[in-house]
Amino acid sequence: MVKVAVVEGDGIGREVVPVARDILTAVRPDIEFFDVEVGYGRWERTGSACGEETVADLRSADAILFGAITTPPDPGYRSVLVQIRRELDLYANVRPIRGEGVDVVIVRENTEGLYSGIEWTEPDRACTVRVVSRRGSERIARYACTLAKSRRHLTVGNKANVLKSDCLFVEACTAEAARAGVPCTFCYIDALCLDLLMHPDRYDVIVTTNIFGDILSDAAAYLVGGLGMLPSANIGKRAALFEPVHGSAPDIAGKNIANPVAAIRSGAMLLDHLGDPVSAAAVEEAVDRVLSAGIRTPDLGGTAGTREFGAAVLREVGRG
Amino acid sequence: MVKVAVVEGDGIGREVVPVARDILTAVRPDIEFFDVEVGYGRWERTGSACGEETVADLRSADAILFGAITTPPDPGYRSVLVQIRRELDLYANVRPIRGEGVDVVIVRENTEGLYSGIEWTEPDRACTVRVVSRRGSERIARYACTLAKSRRHLTVGNKANVLKSDCLFVEACTAEAARAGVPCTFCYIDALCLDLLMHPDRYDVIVTTNIFGDILSDAAAYLVGGLGMLPSANIGKRAALFEPVHGSAPDIAGKNIANPVAAIRSGAMLLDHLGDPVSAAAVEEAVDRVLSAGIRTPDLGGTAGTREFGAAVLREVGRG
Ligand SMILES: CC(C)[C@H](C(=O)O)[C@@H](O)C(=O)O
Ligand SMILES: CC(C)[C@H](C(=O)O)[C@@H](O)C(=O)O
Repeated sequence: MVKVAVVEGDGIGREVVPVARDILTAVRPDIEFFDVEVGYGRWERTGSACGEETVADLRSADAILFGAITTPPDPGYRSVLVQIRRELDLYANVRPIRGEGVDVVIVRENTEGLYSGIEWTEPDRACTVRVVSRRGSERIARYACTLAKSRRHLTVGNKANVLKSDCLFVEACTAEAARAGVPCTFCYIDALCLDLLMHPDRYDVIVTTNIFGDILSDAAAYLVGGLGMLPSANIGKRAALFEPVHGSAPDIAGKNIANPVAAIRSGAMLLDHLGDPVSAAAVEEAVDRVLSAGIRTPDLGGTAGTREFGAAVLREVGRG
Repeated sequence: MVKVAVVEGDGIGREVVPVARDILTAVRPDIEFFDVEVGYGRWERTGSACGEETVADLRSADAILFGAITTPPDPGYRSVLVQIRRELDLYANVRPIRGEGVDVVIVRENTEGLYSGIEWTEPDRACTVRVVSRRGSERIARYACTLAKSRRHLTVGNKANVLKSDCLFVEACTAEAARAGVPCTFCYIDALCLDLLMHPDRYDVIVTTNIFGDILSDAAAYLVGGLGMLPSANIGKRAALFEPVHGSAPDIAGKNIANPVAAIRSGAMLLDHLGDPVSAAAVEEAVDRVLSAGIRTPDLGGTAGTREFGAAVLREVGRG
């Protein structure tokens, strides 16, 4: 029996996750789903966005299917997603960018960097410490190199010309790539954002630190139709969480117009992680066939609703 | 007599700056240029990339025309450009992005944030402190609001959902926009990178912190033909430095193929700063006419060399 925790979260998370869940159920009726409430809605109601028992619940699952969570820019409120990534030590954030002429995987360090949580406020300034650890750099470099080894090559996004903390990151990646025998090049993150847009065919696996990966993946979404398309996996040694790269998008929530592709593809990554590449591929292909048939949500210029798109994928999965 | 310091720097800086300088000379024969040697080449020869006398020389000028400088990712070598920005307190990095359907100005805080220079290495990790000061935030917010006031509206790029240091920045921008009566919205920097690419018409003036502005402007270059097109101004209370956004590009240096548009447009911004908007416009228009005539460097799909493009602009300026 496979146990999958489901966090719908806030906003469109509550619309796209049920769609993804139905599709997973169709291909893998043996999965036992259980809901975990986390997020801003819960915080408003109970004063806590995510408690310790919640983290324990998430830990007990074989995998987590996650929607999106609203974080108000309130100095007293810490991002729950960031908290979960750290508590479950989900160190590798893997973001495949696939589309017409684009096949890139961004591997983002997911537990430190500017997301260290080491912050303080003085009377006249506020500070955040960017932490690049040797262990953190080595393990993400190793993850990226293992992936690149089965693909083509590695690019290391960094800003070592300004941030001396990135010298350590570059060093770790250099060593790991040499060890793994992976061809490896380096690119400053600003230049990389642009060059990835201009020449996506030049890139294969990209590894970078936390916030650079955050920004780079959103920019890369431009190549494949926007954030509605991008899935992600947050991988740790003992836990794994799958979520669309997009946020909770309160402005379009509750209208049945959110694109569920990112969430469905995240579900496919979850299946793959559970050791079922066949079902994962079946879901991926069903999505591709529906898109090819011209069924699309409004963000892609179509007229299908979130639920209608989901129903179309469900039908295709049944056929596949 | 107007005195302009010229730093060609390294790589293609040595090719594009002379072109810009010739054009400035043509429209303003009264400018007295003087060369200042700064950069990697100097460091290799003398062991110092930029001395104190050099900074004093730069300070004595009415404006600085700057090329680009190579920074090796060597932990012992600090970026000279970052050093100059800080020593001359050039707090506003202004980057206009103009082209077909795009008219945006990115105003980037230029003296603190992740570029604080507060860094240290421990045995197992390296740290950089991101510093957001009230004074730093207020003055850049004021600069951006003054600009937005004469234009349309302001967007504040931030990551306050994760970085509590950005709450101070958001607060300062909110207060300044209210005071100036400027319509102001907020956008997380990752989402902003993407949305600016997808809907450039929704943006006018964007203000953000140091490294976010660095990355955002490179991504935005995608909208207007790449980095070869983007000029910038680094503005302080008592000094101003004008430079293309691109770097020294050692891979294409010395081949007479670098696009000098960014450097020439930086020259136009310099003229405007010196209180000569008429000459600035003359240079801008000459560049536009040459581009419209189909004369382009290879990065834009053309066959013109750096010098040939410059010569064409010189002819147009003469005609203007
Ligand atoms: C919501 C936010 C905390 C998150 C991040 O910054 O990592 C998001 O932007 C992402 O990319 O997953
Ligand atoms: C060369 C580098 C120090 C610089 C920066 O990071 O500011 C450059 O990328 C820029 O955008 O001006």
